[in-house]
This record gives sequence, C-alpha cells and structure tokens, in this order.
Amino acid sequence: MEAFSDGVFAIAITLLVLDLTVPDTTATMNDLGSALLEEWPAYLGYLVSFATIGVLWLGHNAITDYLTRADPILLRLNLVLLFFVCLLPFVTRLLSEFLTVDDAERIACTVYGVTLLLCSVLLSALWRYARRAGLIQPDLDDDEVSLLSSRLTPGLGGYIVVIILGLFFPKLAVVGFLVVALFLLTPLRLPRRRTRTSYHRA
Amino acid sequence: MEAFSDGVFAIAITLLVLDLTVPDTTATMNDLGSALLEEWPAYLGYLVSFATIGVLWLGHNAITDYLTRADPILLRLNLVLLFFVCLLPFVTRLLSEFLTVDDAERIACTVYGVTLLLCSVLLSALWRYARRAGLIQPDLDDDEVSLLSSRLTPGLGGYIVVIILGLFFPKLAVVGFLVVALFLLTPLRLPRRRTRTSYHRA
Amino acid sequence: MEAFSDGVFAIAITLLVLDLTVPDTTATMNDLGSALLEEWPAYLGYLVSFATIGVLWLGHNAITDYLTRADPILLRLNLVLLFFVCLLPFVTRLLSEFLTVDDAERIACTVYGVTLLLCSVLLSALWRYARRAGLIQPDLDDDEVSLLSSRLTPGLGGYIVVIILGLFFPKLAVVGFLVVALFLLTPLRLPRRRTRTSYHRA
Amino acid sequence: MEAFSDGVFAIAITLLVLDLTVPDTTATMNDLGSALLEEWPAYLGYLVSFATIGVLWLGHNAITDYLTRADPILLRLNLVLLFFVCLLPFVTRLLSEFLTVDDAERIACTVYGVTLLLCSVLLSALWRYARRAGLIQPDLDDDEVSLLSSRLTPGLGGYIVVIILGLFFPKLAVVGFLVVALFLLTPLRLPRRRTRTSYHRA
Repeated sequence: MEAFSDGVFAIAITLLVLDLTVPDTTATMNDLGSALLEEWPAYLGYLVSFATIGVLWLGHNAITDYLTRADPILLRLNLVLLFFVCLLPFVTRLLSEFLTVDDAERIACTVYGVTLLLCSVLLSALWRYARRAGLIQPDLDDDEVSLLSSRLTPGLGGYIVVIILGLFFPKLAVVGFLVVALFLLTPLRLPRRRTRTSYHRA
Repeated sequence: MEAFSDGVFAIAITLLVLDLTVPDTTATMNDLGSALLEEWPAYLGYLVSFATIGVLWLGHNAITDYLTRADPILLRLNLVLLFFVCLLPFVTRLLSEFLTVDDAERIACTVYGVTLLLCSVLLSALWRYARRAGLIQPDLDDDEVSLLSSRLTPGLGGYIVVIILGLFFPKLAVVGFLVVALFLLTPLRLPRRRTRTSYHRA
Repeated sequence: MEAFSDGVFAIAITLLVLDLTVPDTTATMNDLGSALLEEWPAYLGYLVSFATIGVLWLGHNAITDYLTRADPILLRLNLVLLFFVCLLPFVTRLLSEFLTVDDAERIACTVYGVTLLLCSVLLSALWRYARRAGLIQPDLDDDEVSLLSSRLTPGLGGYIVVIILGLFFPKLAVVGFLVVALFLLTPLRLPRRRTRTSYHRA
Repeated sequence: MEAFSDGVFAIAITLLVLDLTVPDTTATMNDLGSALLEEWPAYLGYLVSFATIGVLWLGHNAITDYLTRADPILLRLNLVLLFFVCLLPFVTRLLSEFLTVDDAERIACTVYGVTLLLCSVLLSALWRYARRAGLIQPDLDDDEVSLLSSRLTPGLGGYIVVIILGLFFPKLAVVGFLVVALFLLTPLRLPRRRTRTSYHRA
C-alpha cells in the first residue's frame, strides 16, 4: 500500500507542473517578463496545490509508518483518498484558467475548495478508521502524528470557512487555502529530536 | 517486480487525470457550470477507469504479497498485463470523446470494454500460473486473496455480458463496467481482523 | 539506485501511451473505426517501444538483483542509460508521426533505431563494468542473467543490421526492431524453477 | 521520505521528455532532418536539465543513505527542495522556447539559472541541517558524500557566475550550466572500491 500510495502522491505533485504553460512565442515576442507575470494565477495555484499535496503526503506517511497491518476496508478508504488526490492537478488547472474570469471564478474556486476539503476529510477518516480498527501501534509518540491529530480537525473547519469566503471573494479564498495548508504544515514547537525507529522501514 | 509494477499502476491511475480537459476560457466565459456539466462522459470515464485500475492493483498486490519467488514466465506475463494497464488512459480518453457521438460510441465502448476484459483475463492468468508453478505460499488465508479468487471468474463473465450490451446501449454499458469494478472491489463480509504479517514486507 | 531506476523505467513505459492520440471528433464523426486503423504506426510504435523498455527493465532488474554494492562510476553509467531510456517516448512519437511520410521516414527510423541501440549498448556496458569491478555476487546462476548474457551481444548485432535495413525499407525495419526485442525477451528453455532468494529483497 | 523523493526525482527527470516536441508533419514534409536540427535549444535544455536532476538525485541519495532518522524540519526542507525540482520541466520548456528569441532569452535564461541555483542551495541546506541536527551517521566515508561535500560550495559559486554571464550571453550561459552540472557529477579520483553496506537498504 505504501509504495503505491507514495507513487500516486509523487506523480500527482509532479503533474502539477504541466498546468504551468509557457507563453506563446510569436504572441509575446520580446515581452516575456510581463507575459509571465500575467500568469500569476497559475503560479499561485501551483504553490497552493503543492503545499496541500505536501501536507496530505506528510499525514499519510505518518499514518502508514504507524500501521502494523492493513485490512480490506482501509485499502479501499485509501483508494478513495487517492481518487481525490489524483483530481488535484485537474482542479488546479481549472482554478488557474478561470481565476481572472468574472463569475466563473466562483465556480472554479468552489470546485477547488471542495476537492481540498474532501482530501482532508478522507485523510482524517483513514486515520480514525485505522485507530478504531486497532491497525496502529499503541505507543504513539511521534511529532508528525501529534501534529496531524491536533491540526486536522481545525484544518477541516478552516477549509469550510474559506470555501464560504470564496463565494464572495474567490481570489482571497485561494490565499486562504494556502494559509490552511501552511497551518497544517508548520510545526509550532521545535522538534524534540527523538529517534524515529520507523525511519529505516521506509 | 513489485516496485516496477506498483510504479506502472500508480502512473497509469494518475495519468487518467490528463484526460479531464478544462473548458476553453474564451468560449465558455461566465457559463463555467454548464460547460463542466457537459463533460460528464469524461468524469464517468475517469471514475470507471480509476475503479478498474484500483481493483487490478488490489488483486496484483495480493498476488505479489503471496509470491515466494518469480520465474521468467511470470515476469513476462506481468509485462503483458502492464501493457494493457498502460493502455487504459488512452481507451478512457477515446471513450470520453466519443460517448456522445452516434455510431462511434459503439466502437469506442467495445474497444474500452475489450481492454478492461484483457486486463482481468491477464490478472487471472497471472494468478493461475503462479499457483500452478508453485510460486506462492501454501497457506493462503487472506481476505484479498479469497475475494480475488471468488470474484475474478464471475467478473470476467460480467465483462463479456456488458461488452455485448454495449453494442446496443453504449452509455448503459459504461455504467455496467462500473458495476463490475465495484462488484470486484466490495468485500461482502466484514474484515476478520487477522494480522497480515506480509504488511511490513511491502 | 534501484528505486529511482525502477521509477524511471515505469514512467518511461507509461508515458508511451501519451503518444497514442485520439482521432479528432469533428473530423472523423461516425467513421471512428477507419480513423483508428489509419493510426497503425502509432500502435506499432507503442508495441515495439513497450517491448524494448520491458526487455531493458528485465535486464536492469537482473543486474541490480545481483549487485552487492554500487560505486560512483556505476551510478553515472546508470544515469547515462536512463538518459536514453527517457528519450524513448520522444523517438517513438517521431517514428509514429513520420512512418507514413516519404523520405522523412528514413530519418525517423534511423533516429529511433540508434536510440534503441544505445540503450542496449549501455545496458551491456553496465553489466560488463559491474562484473569487471567486482560489484556482483560470484555465484551467478539465474535464468534472467544467463538469458541476458547469451542474448545481449547478438541482440546488438541485430540492431545494427536492422538500422542498415531501415535505410532502404523503414517500415520493415520497425518490424525488425520488434523481432530483436522479442528475441531478447523470449526464454528458449522452460524455467528451471530454482528459488530466487533475491526476490524478497526487491 | 526516500520512496516519495525518489519518485518525484524520477518523474521530474522523465517529464523533461515532454518538452521535446515532434516537428509538425505537414509543415516539414520531407525535410525532417533540418527541422530536427532547428530544435537544438530543446535538446540542449533536455541535456542540461537531465544532468542537473541527475546530480541532485545523486546528492539526495547520498544524504538519505546516511540519515539515521528524519525530523519534521528535515521533511519540510525536503518538500521545499522538491518544489523547485518539480519546477525544472517548466523552466526547461521556457528556456527551450525562448533561447532563440531576442531579449526574451535573457529572462528565460535567468529564470532557469535561478531555479537551478535554488535547487542546489536547498540540497546544501538539507545536508547542513541533517549534520547539525545529528540526523546522520557519524562515520562518513563514502565517495558520493565526500564528492558532495567538496563540490557543492564551489558549485553554488559557479551557478552565480553563470547567471550573471547569462545577462550578457544567454546561449553561452546554458553551456555554463552544463559545465557546472558535469563538475558536480564527475568523480576526479577513481572509486576506491569500498563496500557500501548501505546498498542493500536502498
């Protein structure tokens, strides 16, 4: 499960770069600088989606590190999570293309936000199911795990707030999605430098 | 064999997203909602192909977990299976493009269905060969393996029925392919919570 | 080295599918069947390149299975091999596009053949270097390894013959490249069913 | 961390091939040779970026081989490195498209060079952080590691010099980026043939 999931995360995060299109040579001629600056929604989308997939992978990695075994339901829950992760390059392209188009930006922003929310909900469901079904090691004392546990629920709330915000101010909402991803990503305390014996397994 | 195959499955499932095209900005303008809804065949194709590759990977993963060794014929059978798995993003795009075009939809649906059938036939052949050649562990008592054994043969029958159905009702057949994938995917019983010692190996 | 190389092989083999283009909806309308048949060079190219990358991966996999350690020169030789493997989706597209264009087909076929030849030469160089530098286990008695050793040199000769043939009959040469790949791929004897203890390591 | 990073490096290096575009069939007709030669900036870009990602992967691989554990800050530093590695196919395409366009080539070359520089700075930061935080094995006596340590700092200086050079002679600067990558890649001494016990772990 780990190799396949790691592969899907790695490919989804790398495919984001295909959404960055190079300006047309004949149209832009010598004004490449301003042509590149005009494509700021694509760079913003790349940044937000990269940070989000990064967070999802860190969380997923922390979960699989602590799994002692997998059962059929967990494998299927994992497939549903990967289904939405794989959609991220598509909704990012949608956002980048329509973020400067009136009205359409609202729909693009909502579709994008709901996909981000569903990814986080499914990561949370994966974690809860693994704990409830007794698939994880009892001694949980890892920086990533405690960060994941304490941040995931407020993170979900954050996504809902930003999605509603996006109905009125779509451009602001994209910055909001970045803030939520950075909130999930940033460790507040310094790492405690405890040996993670699970490292060699990965 | 496992790392390479896992990689191919992961890439094929992620490349499906490239078949989802973003509507043209100038043409759709502010009517993004209906422009997106018009592309329902692409979303349906993404869903069916994702579920099918998901099933194939689960089956393949269960087989490789129980392999004790590989022989040259198994490695080559595996390459033939991957050949058709790699074709799936192409036939999905074909299906999505032509599902709303008269007559052409019949051909697109048949090509798609035959590719799905061949993938399942080859997964079945891989499993049978591994068992006959004595390449698997004797003590088979895993949820995924028993699910795979009991579902694969009726699943092949299901694909043949749906391919014939597709000659008359192509759109209905696509839903049929989804039903077969979900039949292969859904565990009827609850998992028995047996320790799968093979997990750490993966 | 193994995980990275396996990844590159898996991605290169899967990217081949992007060279298969779906016919234009408006142009072909209801004549999808003949539109698909007209694209036979693309399918032939996909088949030949898939078989070739498959052979290269099998050989590479057999080598890495028997490596006891890697040294800087081996890692760099490996990078040069991967450089040409990564070029394969490009030269395949070139071949598919120009195989039905007079004169140009000669150039496309030669570029394609030289890339295949260089991949095989580098795989052979990797193998010879690893043996000469004492990086492999002394007890070599594996089906894949003996197949690789006995076939690689005549295979290189085969590529040179087919490249020269392609200067006069490019379409025939493409079939010739397939024949060379199948010659490298097909085990003549039945597998001897010896336990490959290295399997679990992979 | 290793599987995910290896995947991202493998995908980024393979996606470079998508920047190599096949000449248009109708426009070039039978003059494929000169049409291919005209695209020399794309081949040069592919070569330079392939060599650079190859260097980055070798360095990253040497670091992860010697890590005994990972901490949250290291994982996040690693994500930032991968962020710029994933950008490489985009900036390579930018360079290839605009290397023959007056004025624009200066901007394309600077954007490309700064991305290369940031990748190397982050690889250096990853290495320094891992050493300072005590995450690596104390007995460092590996060819790749000593090569990495002795070459990385002059390599960074080289990038800065070539970026400044590129403001005046962009085409020359691209060759300069290749020279820096080859400098980082080439082992001066012959390998000392010491057993790398860490190989089997990878």
